[in-house]
Amino acid sequence: MNVILCEPAELRADGSVCLTGARAQHLMNVLKVTVGQQVRLGVVDAAMGMGTVRRIDRGEVEVACEFERDAPPVPPVDVLLALPRPKVMRRLWAPLAALGVGRIVLTNAARVERHYFDTHVLEVGTYRPLLIEGLQQARDTRVPVVSIHRQFRVLVEDELDRLCPQRARLVAQPGAAGPPGDVLQRYAGERVLLAIGPEGGWNDFELGLLDAHGFRAVSLGPRVLRTDTACVALLAVAHEAIRAEGAGRVGATEHAR
Amino acid sequence: MNVILCEPAELRADGSVCLTGARAQHLMNVLKVTVGQQVRLGVVDAAMGMGTVRRIDRGEVEVACEFERDAPPVPPVDVLLALPRPKVMRRLWAPLAALGVGRIVLTNAARVERHYFDTHVLEVGTYRPLLIEGLQQARDTRVPVVSIHRQFRVLVEDELDRLCPQRARLVAQPGAAGPPGDVLQRYAGERVLLAIGPEGGWNDFELGLLDAHGFRAVSLGPRVLRTDTACVALLAVAHEAIRAEGAGRVGATEHAR
Repeated sequence: MNVILCEPAELRADGSVCLTGARAQHLMNVLKVTVGQQVRLGVVDAAMGMGTVRRIDRGEVEVACEFERDAPPVPPVDVLLALPRPKVMRRLWAPLAALGVGRIVLTNAARVERHYFDTHVLEVGTYRPLLIEGLQQARDTRVPVVSIHRQFRVLVEDELDRLCPQRARLVAQPGAAGPPGDVLQRYAGERVLLAIGPEGGWNDFELGLLDAHGFRAVSLGPRVLRTDTACVALLAVAHEAIRAEGAGRVGATEHAR
Repeated sequence: MNVILCEPAELRADGSVCLTGARAQHLMNVLKVTVGQQVRLGVVDAAMGMGTVRRIDRGEVEVACEFERDAPPVPPVDVLLALPRPKVMRRLWAPLAALGVGRIVLTNAARVERHYFDTHVLEVGTYRPLLIEGLQQARDTRVPVVSIHRQFRVLVEDELDRLCPQRARLVAQPGAAGPPGDVLQRYAGERVLLAIGPEGGWNDFELGLLDAHGFRAVSLGPRVLRTDTACVALLAVAHEAIRAEGAGRVGATEHAR
């Protein structure tokens, strides 16, 4: 944990919070905090800040908090992911949140098995703690917004423009097309939506529908990656392209002065 | 499996191979091959090619192979990794091979626990099948060369220049320094070595030693990632930068004509 997150309801009127359970254990046993020590703290979907340990007692750690004025910005990338099998999906929640996504749109596809949807890995009680684990690792407070769609066509035709109105839409296809950076250059400063298919790939109908809704095919090269590796790889490359783009623009502005 | 790999010793003089076990099961039950069908096949550390199924019988699949002349090139990236805990290391072997690395150098560090070395995850009998699983996913034949080093200082001072003589050396540090792409631009066409620290990071002595041996600090941004996520992310970004560099040079050459 590189930041400890608490829920808004846990904050008392005086700005203090009383941590119990895993977070208190982490403070006591891993960070070995003492009274008076500073710890990094944040409120879910709100600001980060610093806390001063005020009391350590019977498995509880009381912290007095001072928060920054603004919440961190929502990460500039959303993900449209064909639902992988439950074991893989369980492993993906935390890294997705850690890498930074605003929205996670899970969808059915021809090569997704129906029973993948009947799993507690898709219950908010299972995935929300895993998303928060990822945020605590990455020092963020913004919980990705999750939605689950059992009909790919209905999602893409009727719902996607409302969920993810951005024009910068990329679909990953092994071996096909150019690198993501080339496409992202065209949409500097805009939110990005990355579509990642099932093991075995999208079928032709799905690719056609994605194409008709503005998704440009991009590739991470000729190597075929498993869904979970591809997700992390593509998110990392997209974030890096966005950062480089931002640095380029800052550099250009400074140069113009 | 996007290619089926066999060991050189499995190849008969007439270029055929008799597959049993997991590979035969995959051909029969997942790909549902029939006699006469073509399958993608490769020899470990040698060429890829196509095979024709000649016989399916009592759990065995016999395939007649035609190989390309040349083995695929060794991936242009090596990794120097502070040994993560066994559970994480076990999960990393296949994605490392799938993303493409020439060499995996595992090392001790101040924040690596000693008992991480006492695990069967570091035995060749455990990790080689996992590396081959990654290669079969990514369609490659080149098994990364693995070495394990219990003394960080001895490794960096006395052994690293022999194992990884390249000048393009990067060390990942959250928040510090610039993006990997900026550094990689300076070393176009050269092999790259990426150093990834333990959870909690390299200590000052280790960072000093890496710096003294040519490692430039790079960052994937302010978010702190877990070792396994950081490995996949950094490898993806490095491969992407190398590809873009290559495409740039091809583009420049074509333009110059």
